[in-house]
Amino acid sequence: MLSKKLIKDIQSLGLKKHREESGLFVAEGPKIVNELAQLVPSQIETIYATKNWTDRGIPANITVEEVSDVELQKISQLKSPNEVLAVVKQFASKAPSTIEGICLYLDGIQDPGNFGTIIRIADWFGVKQIVAAAGTADLYNPKVVQSSMASIARVLVWYDEKGDFLAGQNAPVIAASLDGESVYDCKLVPPFILVIGNESKGISESVMANANQRVRIPSKGEAESLNAAVATGILLSHLTN
Amino acid sequence: MLSKKLIKDIQSLGLKKHREESGLFVAEGPKIVNELAQLVPSQIETIYATKNWTDRGIPANITVEEVSDVELQKISQLKSPNEVLAVVKQFASKAPSTIEGICLYLDGIQDPGNFGTIIRIADWFGVKQIVAAAGTADLYNPKVVQSSMASIARVLVWYDEKGDFLAGQNAPVIAASLDGESVYDCKLVPPFILVIGNESKGISESVMANANQRVRIPSKGEAESLNAAVATGILLSHLTN
Repeated sequence: MLSKKLIKDIQSLGLKKHREESGLFVAEGPKIVNELAQLVPSQIETIYATKNWTDRGIPANITVEEVSDVELQKISQLKSPNEVLAVVKQFASKAPSTIEGICLYLDGIQDPGNFGTIIRIADWFGVKQIVAAAGTADLYNPKVVQSSMASIARVLVWYDEKGDFLAGQNAPVIAASLDGESVYDCKLVPPFILVIGNESKGISESVMANANQRVRIPSKGEAESLNAAVATGILLSHLTN
Repeated sequence: MLSKKLIKDIQSLGLKKHREESGLFVAEGPKIVNELAQLVPSQIETIYATKNWTDRGIPANITVEEVSDVELQKISQLKSPNEVLAVVKQFASKAPSTIEGICLYLDGIQDPGNFGTIIRIADWFGVKQIVAAAGTADLYNPKVVQSSMASIARVLVWYDEKGDFLAGQNAPVIAASLDGESVYDCKLVPPFILVIGNESKGISESVMANANQRVRIPSKGEAESLNAAVATGILLSHLTN
């Protein structure tokens, strides 16, 4: 049985303040928890799971506590909890020392779903470095974790809190911008940094000041813009190919 | 002042049943309402707006009712209502008689945000026809409307309730599938129908039976899959270029 204090502690990981204090975050559902248990078992503090989940086998060297459906409901951030919740240690993070291949620079992606989806896209295209400007959603927000689908364990995300990362780089800085060159026409050879702007405000002036080149996805229709994650996917697909 | 009955009627448009009975739906926020008022003024039944919005000018030939912040809160589907809400007549819809360019066939996109994002992507790439299999989210779900960003007024969406649309087509049917040919290597000339599968189950057997060819987005990393809307964006970008 989970103590009231423990339930409260796990619940509190829904808030950034408590995640920062504890250095922990929460991942939920068999898909992501199973993948994290395989990828980074030493990062997992405890797995809380219902009998349904534990009956399918318990990973070695990980503390697993069996909980009732009611208990899972109490500690879950989801409306419909899904068998298992893991409390996970946050990953070590530092600024990339050299740019390898393509590094994404996110200039304030605010929607957690977009941010998590971008991490998953990066992982799909073999991008291992993401630098996030201040104003980007918190990496350990439950919605970011869920939408990253365990790619959060494979892609390095570092926050450029001081905003001086780009100015110190030798690699070219390529800004995704509606007034750029068509991505269909430009051949860019990694290493480079691809900058994706905020969902509504685009790329800020101070970040754009560091851009060596701009690229756009040409429109063939009438929509005013593309979702930031979709644009990232399209750009990476063309630029890695 | 809005009557209690009217408030209830507008609120009820959050439910599919009431949208179907009334033939109406709700769009919220200045961005989408302004665009709909410009694009399809005759479709708008009434705009309910706060003084902030009406002070910037009222579109001609559209009924606009000024409401208080409290009233807007009452009729809104959003946690944070944004100045204006329009009650809009649903668009006429019929099966595409001929495939023009690329037609998207959505085999059960269940997440309303994904569905709306796909409509916006289609509009960006000049795709004017979307056919949705039974099981796809409701087009007039408020989250679909919001994430489509007024592209809902420019792209025809028709529901293939009987599931017999694909079998009757002359245009080639191209299925997005992880075991397909690389989209980077195949040249497809429109008209054709591009099938996108359900977020977790992919393309159903009965739909796949109609496919003439399969295409995939090659992975260069380790993520297991891409979000359905992101995959649609990447495929359309390559196939329209």
